[in-house]
Amino acid sequence: MLKPTTPASPLPSWNEGDVKASVIDFVGRTSAEGGPDYVAPPDRIALFDNDGTLWVEQPMMTQAAFLFEGVKAIAPQHPEWTSTEPFKSALDGNLAGVAAGGERAIMELFAATQCGMATTDFNKSAIEWIETARHPRFSRPYTQCVYQPMLELMAYLRSNGFTTYIVTGGGADFVRPWAERVYGVPSQQIIGSSLKTKFEMLDGKPVLIRTPEVNLFDDGPGKPSGIHQFIGKQPIAAFGNSDGDLPMLQWTAAGTGPRLMLLVHHTDAQREYAYDESPLGNLDKALQEARSRGWLITDIKRDWNTVFPEG
Amino acid sequence: MLKPTTPASPLPSWNEGDVKASVIDFVGRTSAEGGPDYVAPPDRIALFDNDGTLWVEQPMMTQAAFLFEGVKAIAPQHPEWTSTEPFKSALDGNLAGVAAGGERAIMELFAATQCGMATTDFNKSAIEWIETARHPRFSRPYTQCVYQPMLELMAYLRSNGFTTYIVTGGGADFVRPWAERVYGVPSQQIIGSSLKTKFEMLDGKPVLIRTPEVNLFDDGPGKPSGIHQFIGKQPIAAFGNSDGDLPMLQWTAAGTGPRLMLLVHHTDAQREYAYDESPLGNLDKALQEARSRGWLITDIKRDWNTVFPEG
Repeated sequence: MLKPTTPASPLPSWNEGDVKASVIDFVGRTSAEGGPDYVAPPDRIALFDNDGTLWVEQPMMTQAAFLFEGVKAIAPQHPEWTSTEPFKSALDGNLAGVAAGGERAIMELFAATQCGMATTDFNKSAIEWIETARHPRFSRPYTQCVYQPMLELMAYLRSNGFTTYIVTGGGADFVRPWAERVYGVPSQQIIGSSLKTKFEMLDGKPVLIRTPEVNLFDDGPGKPSGIHQFIGKQPIAAFGNSDGDLPMLQWTAAGTGPRLMLLVHHTDAQREYAYDESPLGNLDKALQEARSRGWLITDIKRDWNTVFPEG
Repeated sequence: MLKPTTPASPLPSWNEGDVKASVIDFVGRTSAEGGPDYVAPPDRIALFDNDGTLWVEQPMMTQAAFLFEGVKAIAPQHPEWTSTEPFKSALDGNLAGVAAGGERAIMELFAATQCGMATTDFNKSAIEWIETARHPRFSRPYTQCVYQPMLELMAYLRSNGFTTYIVTGGGADFVRPWAERVYGVPSQQIIGSSLKTKFEMLDGKPVLIRTPEVNLFDDGPGKPSGIHQFIGKQPIAAFGNSDGDLPMLQWTAAGTGPRLMLLVHHTDAQREYAYDESPLGNLDKALQEARSRGWLITDIKRDWNTVFPEG
C-alpha cells in the first residue's frame, strides 16, 4: 500500500477550506461516543467509486486499456476483427467507438478475452498486466495514478473506525488483486461489476470458471443494488465523480442520521485533467443535484495541494 | 446477541475429544505470529452455513415456515391456490410437496408473497415475524433454536482475529435483520440467496424494489460462486451440515496453507433431531468425503454437552 503520511493534522494534501472542514466535522461527529450524531462502528460505512474518484480515468479507464490489450493479443487469430465492431474500435484504441455499442459491445469484448478461464488464472493475468503497464501521459504505473488526497481520506476514515468499501463499475476481479496493497481495501470490501462463475472440478481440483453471463453491472442504478446485496444496509458516506455515481449518492443520502456525500470535480488540466464529459459517464445531473442539496464538491485545482503520491 | 459465556477454557459446551482439540489446535496455529501456519488477520476467514449448522432446520427450515405463513396470509384473495401447486402444498405446510417442484416452485411462492415490495418493507416483515413466531417442538423463538456450541465457536474464532461469515441457501434479506443480534455477524458478512433488486424513485425517495428474478441461488455449487463474488478469496475454514455445503467445503479445502473443514452431524433425536435426509438437502456425499479426507465431523450426541442457549 502507498502509505499516506500520518501527521498531526489529518488530510495534509487537502487545502484548508469548506470541504476539508466539513469532512473533519462529519468524522468527528459520527465517531464521538455519546454525541447526538454518534454512529456505531459496524454502521460506519463509507463507499468510494474507483474510476475518477480514487484513480485517473483519462484518457480512458484503466480497465479499458487492459481489455483492449487483451483484444490485440489474440487479434491475429481473428482477422475478421479488423472490420467488425466492437473489435475494430478496440484495436484502434477507440473507447468512444466501443461505448457507442453500449453494454452489449463491452460484454462482447469481455466474452472474447476474459471468459472461459478460471478465476485464479484471470487474477494472475490482471496482476501481471497492472504491474507492468504504464499510464500514457504520466509514465508511471496505473496504481501510482491514484489520488493522494483520497488515500489520506480513506486512511483517516479507517483510523476513525470506518470501514471503507470500493463500489466500482469496473470489474471486481480486476481491482481486487491489487486494491489491498494500493488502497488498503481488502478484497471482501470490493463491490464491482462481475460475471457469473461456474463451479467445476478440473482434474479433481475445484475451480470457478468465468462465464460470459453478466452477474452485476455495478454502475448507475446497479450501484445501490450492489450495495444492498453486499452490505445489506445503507452506508453513511459516499464519494463519487460522475452521473454513474448519482444513485449511490442518493441511496446514501436517503438514510436517516448524519450523512456525507461528496463529488470529485476534475478541474485541473495541468496536474491531472479537466472534464465533465467522458465516453463512459458524464458529470452533469450529479453536479446539479450536489449543488441543490448541499453535497460537498471537491474542486481538484482548488482543494488539493498534491494530486499523486510521490513516485 | 445471545452472549456465549467466556470462561477460562474456550468452547465450554463442547465435550473434550478429537473435534474440540482439533479446532483449538487449528486456531492456535493460524493465529500464532511467526509460526509456520500463521495466517494474517484479513485472510483469517471462516464460513458458516446457517440451516442445520447454526440453527435448527427441522421439521422444516425456518424460512419455509415464514414463506408458508405469507402464502396463508393472502390465500383468501387466491381461491385457486387450494388446488394449484406449489400453493396447495404450501397451504398444507407440506415442504416435501413444494420441494418436489424444485427451485421453480419455491420461486413461485417467493414471487407471490415477497416480491414487488421495497427491501426496507421486507426487512420489517421479516423482523416482525421472527420476533413472534415459535418453533413447534421447542416452543421458543426460532432465534433461540440456535446451537450454543456454534455460538461459542464463532465467538472463539472472532476473539482470535477471524472474520465470521454466514453462507446460507436461505435469503440474505431474511437472515440479516437479526443475525447481528443473534450470531454477532453483521449484515455485510451475510452471503445468502437473493433476488435482483431495482432502484426506483418513489415519491422522490429512492427505494430498492425486490423483483421476482433470482440473483443468486446460494446453495450447492452456488456457494463457491457466492463466496468468490462477495469475498474474492478463499476462506481458511468452513462449517456445514449437508451435501449443499459440499462445494463450499471443497472450495475451502482447495486453498493452500492450513485449512479446517467441519460437518455438523445430527445424531441426537432426544435433545434435537437425528437425520441424514431432509426435503431440501441430504447428508450423504459430504459425509463420505469428510470421512475419506479426514475433515472433522461433529456428532451432536457425543460432542455437545449443551445444544441450545439457556432460555
